[in-house]
Amino acid sequence: MKHILLIGIGPGDPDALTLAAIKGIRRTDVFFFLEKEGDGKDSLIRFRREILAEHAADRAYRVAAGASPKRDRASADYQGAVEDWRRRRTQVIADLIDGNMADGETGAFLLWGDPALYDGTMQNLHDLIAEGRDDITFEVIPGITCVQALTAKHRIPLNRVGEEIVITTGRQIETGDPATVTNSIVMLDSRDAYMRLRDRPDMDIFWGGDVGSPDEVLIAGPLDETADRISETIKAQRARKGWIMDTYVLRRRRAPDASGS
Amino acid sequence: MKHILLIGIGPGDPDALTLAAIKGIRRTDVFFFLEKEGDGKDSLIRFRREILAEHAADRAYRVAAGASPKRDRASADYQGAVEDWRRRRTQVIADLIDGNMADGETGAFLLWGDPALYDGTMQNLHDLIAEGRDDITFEVIPGITCVQALTAKHRIPLNRVGEEIVITTGRQIETGDPATVTNSIVMLDSRDAYMRLRDRPDMDIFWGGDVGSPDEVLIAGPLDETADRISETIKAQRARKGWIMDTYVLRRRRAPDASGS
Ligand SMILES: C[S@@+](CC[C@H](N)C(=O)[O-])C[C@H]1O[C@@H](n2cnc3c(N)ncnc32)[C@H](O)[C@@H]1O
Ligand SMILES: C[S@@+](CC[C@H](N)C(=O)[O-])C[C@H]1O[C@@H](n2cnc3c(N)ncnc32)[C@H](O)[C@@H]1O
Repeated sequence: MKHILLIGIGPGDPDALTLAAIKGIRRTDVFFFLEKEGDGKDSLIRFRREILAEHAADRAYRVAAGASPKRDRASADYQGAVEDWRRRRTQVIADLIDGNMADGETGAFLLWGDPALYDGTMQNLHDLIAEGRDDITFEVIPGITCVQALTAKHRIPLNRVGEEIVITTGRQIETGDPATVTNSIVMLDSRDAYMRLRDRPDMDIFWGGDVGSPDEVLIAGPLDETADRISETIKAQRARKGWIMDTYVLRRRRAPDASGS
Repeated sequence: MKHILLIGIGPGDPDALTLAAIKGIRRTDVFFFLEKEGDGKDSLIRFRREILAEHAADRAYRVAAGASPKRDRASADYQGAVEDWRRRRTQVIADLIDGNMADGETGAFLLWGDPALYDGTMQNLHDLIAEGRDDITFEVIPGITCVQALTAKHRIPLNRVGEEIVITTGRQIETGDPATVTNSIVMLDSRDAYMRLRDRPDMDIFWGGDVGSPDEVLIAGPLDETADRISETIKAQRARKGWIMDTYVLRRRRAPDASGS
C-alpha cells in the first residue's frame, strides 16, 4: 500500500501551518512537487523547501518533482479542456507515485491554502483510485485558505447578519449577472473582473495580493474609488516579479451596517 | 492601549491549531471566555482550558469569564433581535476588558473555528471602537473552520469544476428556494433543514457532527437515503450529551462527475 497525504500549508505565511500539517510532514517519506513549468513561481517552491527545512530538517526525506501539465486556455470548450488537463495531471501523479514510492511508504503533496479549495489534486487521486489503483490510500489535512488570510488582514467577517457567502471565480464574475453580487469572494481572477462592477456606486471591495507573504498588499474601499489603484498595483507586482495571487471580497453596501464589517 | 487578539482555534481538534494561534496564545496576558450559560457546552470550555494547559503552561496568564447574553429567539423581528443581542454582547465585552486589562496588556478570545465565519466577536469589537474606544486595538488570527474539517474528513473538494460555493445557514435552507441549491454548505441548522430537500432524488449530502472532536460522526450519501439516519444520529447525540454541532454539504448530482467528489 502507498499512503498519500494532501497537506494544506496555508497561503504563504509559515505561521499559518497547523500542528496537524507539521505532524503530517514529519511522517512523510517523499514529497511531491508539482509545479507549473516556466511560470516563474519559483518562490512558491522556495516556500515549500523552507517549510521542510524548518519542520523536517532532522529527518531523511526525499523530494520528487513532476511537471504539472498545462491547461489549454485557448480552447473554446472550457469543460473539455479542464477534463483533458485533469486526465493528464492524474497520469503525472501516477508516474510520480510509481517512480518514487515503495510499498508501505507515505508520500505527500504540500498544497497551497486548503486542499479542498480550487485545487485539483484531490480529484486526481479519486480518479486514480476509481481507475483501479487500490494500492493507493489518501487523507486530507486542512490548511488556512487565502480567503481566511484576506478577511483576517482586513478584519472583516465573511458575511453580515443573515447573509450568504458565495465563493466564486473571476470567470464567473465576468460572465454572471452583476445584480446578483451582494457578498462574493472572488479567486482565480487573472483579468480584473471587478472592473465589470466598478460603475456601481454601492459596492465595496476588500482586496489582497499575496496575502500572508512578504509581498502582501491590501486595498479596501468603495469599488468605484479603488478599482484603478487595484489594477495598477496588480500590474506593478506582475512587472516586478512576474505574477501575483490575489483574492477579494465584493460586498454591496446596505443600510443597517454600511461599514461592511 | 489595550490590544485584543481574536484567535481562531479550529473546530475541536487540538492539532488544527496553527503556529500563529500558538504564538498568539503565548503573548496573551488575559483570556476571555464568553460562554453561553447553562447550555451544557462545558466541553467547549474544557477544550480551551486544555489548549492553554498545552501551549501556555509555563506562563502566568489569567482567565476572565463573562456570560454571553442570550438572543431572543421568540421575537418575530429577527434582525431587531440580532441587533439587540449584538449591543448587549458588546457591553459584556467592554466590561470584561475594563475589569480585567491594564494599559499595555494583551487580551484574547479563543474563537471556535475561524473568527470570520459566523462569529459575532469581531463585529462587537468594531462596534466598541466605533463608539469611541480608541484605547482598544485588535487583530485576527485565522483558524481552521468546521467546513474545512468536514470536507477533509469526507475527502471532497468544496466544489466541482466551474461551480460556485455557497455557505449558508439552516434558516436560509428552510426559507429559500430549494431549486437554487446546487452546492451549499449549511451551518447553524438546529431544525433539520435538509429534510426540506429530501424528496429530491438528485441530492447528495455530506454530513458531519462534532467533526474533529472525539465525538465525530460522519454520514454521506444520497439525501433521500440518508436523511433519516442523520436525523436519528442528531437526536441520539443530543440525548447523550445535550447538544451537537453539525455542518453539511448539500450537492445536486450532475452527469459529468456524478461522484460529487
Ligand atoms: C488554484 S487556487 C488555490 C487556492 C488555495 N487552495 C487556497 O485555499 O487558498 C489559487 C488562487 O488562490 C488565490 N490565492 C492563493 N494564495 C493567495 C494569497 N496568498 N493571496 C491572495 N490570493 C491568493 C488567488 O485567487 C489564486 O488565483
Ligand atoms: C456560531 S458558528 C461558528 C463557526 C466557526 N466560527 C467555524 O469557523 O467553524 C457554529 C456552527 O458551526 C458549525 N460547527 C462548529 N463546529 C463544528 C464541528 N466541530 N463539527 C460540525 N459543525 C461545527 C455548526 O453548524 C454550528 O452551528
